[in-house]
Amino acid sequence: MRFATLALLAATRAAGTKSSLGPAALAPQQQRDAAIDALRHHVNEEVEQRHLRDLLEDEARCNACTAEACGLYLDFARQKVTVHTIDLLINVARACNVEEKRDAMFRGEVMNPTENRSVRHVSLRATRGDPYAIEEAQDTLDRVLDFARAVRSRHVRGSSGEALVDVVAIGIGGSSLGPACVHEALASEYASEADGRRLRFIANVDPVETEMALRDLDPASTLVIVISKTFTTKETMLNAALVKTWLGEQYESHMCAVTAAAEKARAFGCERIFGFGDYVGGRYSVWSPVGCLPLALQYGVRPVRELLRGARAMDLHFREAPLSENLPVLLALVGFLNAFIYERDCRAVLPYARALSLFPRYVQQLEMESNGKGVDVEGNALTEPAGEVVFGEAGTPGQHSFYQLLHQGLRVVPCEFLGVCQGDGENHDELFRNFCAQADALALGDDGGGDNHRRCPGDRPSLSLMLDRVDAFHVGALLALYEHRTAAQGWLYGVNSFDQFGVELGKRLAGLIESGDAATASTRALLARYRAKRVARMEALAAGGGGASE
Amino acid sequence: MRFATLALLAATRAAGTKSSLGPAALAPQQQRDAAIDALRHHVNEEVEQRHLRDLLEDEARCNACTAEACGLYLDFARQKVTVHTIDLLINVARACNVEEKRDAMFRGEVMNPTENRSVRHVSLRATRGDPYAIEEAQDTLDRVLDFARAVRSRHVRGSSGEALVDVVAIGIGGSSLGPACVHEALASEYASEADGRRLRFIANVDPVETEMALRDLDPASTLVIVISKTFTTKETMLNAALVKTWLGEQYESHMCAVTAAAEKARAFGCERIFGFGDYVGGRYSVWSPVGCLPLALQYGVRPVRELLRGARAMDLHFREAPLSENLPVLLALVGFLNAFIYERDCRAVLPYARALSLFPRYVQQLEMESNGKGVDVEGNALTEPAGEVVFGEAGTPGQHSFYQLLHQGLRVVPCEFLGVCQGDGENHDELFRNFCAQADALALGDDGGGDNHRRCPGDRPSLSLMLDRVDAFHVGALLALYEHRTAAQGWLYGVNSFDQFGVELGKRLAGLIESGDAATASTRALLARYRAKRVARMEALAAGGGGASE
Repeated sequence: MRFATLALLAATRAAGTKSSLGPAALAPQQQRDAAIDALRHHVNEEVEQRHLRDLLEDEARCNACTAEACGLYLDFARQKVTVHTIDLLINVARACNVEEKRDAMFRGEVMNPTENRSVRHVSLRATRGDPYAIEEAQDTLDRVLDFARAVRSRHVRGSSGEALVDVVAIGIGGSSLGPACVHEALASEYASEADGRRLRFIANVDPVETEMALRDLDPASTLVIVISKTFTTKETMLNAALVKTWLGEQYESHMCAVTAAAEKARAFGCERIFGFGDYVGGRYSVWSPVGCLPLALQYGVRPVRELLRGARAMDLHFREAPLSENLPVLLALVGFLNAFIYERDCRAVLPYARALSLFPRYVQQLEMESNGKGVDVEGNALTEPAGEVVFGEAGTPGQHSFYQLLHQGLRVVPCEFLGVCQGDGENHDELFRNFCAQADALALGDDGGGDNHRRCPGDRPSLSLMLDRVDAFHVGALLALYEHRTAAQGWLYGVNSFDQFGVELGKRLAGLIESGDAATASTRALLARYRAKRVARMEALAAGGGGASE
Repeated sequence: MRFATLALLAATRAAGTKSSLGPAALAPQQQRDAAIDALRHHVNEEVEQRHLRDLLEDEARCNACTAEACGLYLDFARQKVTVHTIDLLINVARACNVEEKRDAMFRGEVMNPTENRSVRHVSLRATRGDPYAIEEAQDTLDRVLDFARAVRSRHVRGSSGEALVDVVAIGIGGSSLGPACVHEALASEYASEADGRRLRFIANVDPVETEMALRDLDPASTLVIVISKTFTTKETMLNAALVKTWLGEQYESHMCAVTAAAEKARAFGCERIFGFGDYVGGRYSVWSPVGCLPLALQYGVRPVRELLRGARAMDLHFREAPLSENLPVLLALVGFLNAFIYERDCRAVLPYARALSLFPRYVQQLEMESNGKGVDVEGNALTEPAGEVVFGEAGTPGQHSFYQLLHQGLRVVPCEFLGVCQGDGENHDELFRNFCAQADALALGDDGGGDNHRRCPGDRPSLSLMLDRVDAFHVGALLALYEHRTAAQGWLYGVNSFDQFGVELGKRLAGLIESGDAATASTRALLARYRAKRVARMEALAAGGGGASE
């Protein structure tokens, strides 16, 4: 704590509060600055120069770099930290009032001040007795699960009497990535529950997406879910119109909606409507009917209940565990350390599990949309970047793709490896060995036997997160872990993780193009070429040609 | 050219070559340094401070920032360049001998000196008359296409007489990403050619990958292709063993191989073997039987011929077009400018086409594996990073995911937007409008009506690349464009883009774990937990339990 105390003293003096020496005397911003300065000073002086090869030899330190909850085991011994660094990181969390903000979020206070909203996705996985449960959300969940049960048991059928065995979910962004990620994650574990059923997602406004999703489906046995909070999302409404045409009049009643705009959904022709409140942001909505409806239709009620139970277990852990053992807080602190102190732009999320192959994209949205901000929660311009570029692929395929740069390139990319205990046979053992070996290779490096072309410098940080297995419970806990980590990291950055105003400008400029008002000469030239090529194509088709490519 | 000349003069003097003033008098490294210094000085002094909003108002400059070849149209007006910057970039290309290296590559010289290999993927799409064609490669292609024709026409059938309508391709890295990317790209355009046929890829050693690929296939009608240059790739051989078991003795003859190790393939039990030379690297191998065999089986001979024809057209363009109009060189220069001069760590590849949804991952491997190096081609440690972190998703879904950070975060991520002229209806028009609008939004920004939370700073570089359509010809041209761009950018960095020694250490450490020699205490703890959890699971199963998640 030496440096922390010195920095606090210095900050106290600078603030002119002569007589009071305790942190309590500092304004919140000064407390944060002092805690970060202390951390930065310590890292520069005592950690940065130490190779991970050396840090990893201290077994007591390695043991201190582990934590466990809800069947998830975290090992961050391969981060550039000493035991003292962890203390200083936790001081930063305290100085940023992470605990107070967490508690305020659970109490339903306005955590998204720019939109004057509370942030209550945790209520979606609460049980009725929980203090932060919301009656209305519980009722909606019951309706969702009852409906799914009725469809799966064939009590509810299509308009010509056929069983509704296929589901098409139309939605984009948060209305697609979370549900698609969980759908993929559960496909092997719950294969028998999904037997004879198919679930497809349509997100992209490119009509090829709809074409590919529908081409082997039959409207008579297909249920369509249109997912849009406002029921005005341009892509979703254009795709819903295509799918409605495909259904034809006979099956128009096969459409239901997940939306907060029930009137609009009814006007569009959706029969059944499931609502969700404006206290749930899109990227935190997989626990609402956005995710629960398609997932319950595909896998049944039990896996959805387990998913929610896993998330709730992580909520309890997040609320109750001390910061030094709190998985979401530890992940946030490690992320903050790499991004803010070590100034790494990117982070790789690398699940060694085919079932989690969409998880990197889920995290990509969650974090980049939440924390990719340029101003703090008060609207002051940030002086140092918040948010990281998150990318990743499932291992082992990633190893044969972009890992070359991770091992030998000069750009250091902190990695998050996810591994799974349960799995079959020699293939899964090989998978797990690689999950361990890649982390060691990044940390330890190797001199390449004196050949510089083969040399790996090592000293590259990673963390390892192990799931007992990829079932609905652990998937729920994993997603909730990353949600809370994202929020906590946002509190460390001092940003509002719950708005996303940055996406509005592009929508507006697309609207201007539609009304003939392109913003630049370059865009006018692109549009002219677009139109000319289409006219040429029409003429070629009319002349009986068509397929020629040049 | 003012600064370039000055810098050259300075470098000449520093080198002590008193009397000679021309660039020819400089050693290659000095020429490169001088050209880069001139570029850097110009950018710092004349471009960096100018907002893209202003640069885009100069229509003459915008026109100078376009080029076109093979049905691909490039607009890089939204890069932080003036017309003079382009001249200086081309000086850098000349100083790095990009033209000489390109010509040497086509002549078949050793461009991969660390492995003492020539780099001849261009020969795979040559026609027999081309100077760089290789007889053996042409013969192999003929055999591949003949075999595909025979399978598709049902002259070749499975061992019980059934038509072989499904294909499973087992391979990882370059043996998977290129073929899978093209498979996805052609799925809509050539849907009728693929009618009744399925093509699946197995890359991940996770047994779930094989389980998911095979679960609705019938061994009697499935052809299996095992793809591995050495036939020792651990993941591929483990997966091939699983699939061989699935085929059963009756259908063992359904396996063929793409490999340079014919003996090993035969010993494994593969009947038909298609070879490729060591002059083709994995990530450049989609044009070999690695890609042509599964693609010809799925789509027939004509699309594969078109794919090769498109790539060959780009080869001719790359060989012959002057640098200032040369698409691969221009892309490489823009990439180099952003990564090396503006020091951007990442680049986003954003195709506004569902068909190109795997293209970002293809480029991710191609570039990060090729140029993610820490030493130059001579083995000297680089002082500035080579290679960028490449990531991306198809638009418009990406807009609803990570674009928030692109627009408002403080980390600037150069973007490459891909658009397509051909497409159907209002949905495709909306797609194209977004392709244009996002580039404008990044460049122009907006003050958010005085609300800092809504403010987008703009001045963020992007380029726009338009394809006439997503057919095999244009996909071939596009992939070849990025191949050559990657090689050219590697020559600008001064690295060997054709080896990948950085991936060896991880494999070695995985092998050590297998033989009981884990490298760190942390890994030993992870393995202990892995084993304990599996034992507990076995015991639970034996006791008749099983599914409990906690």
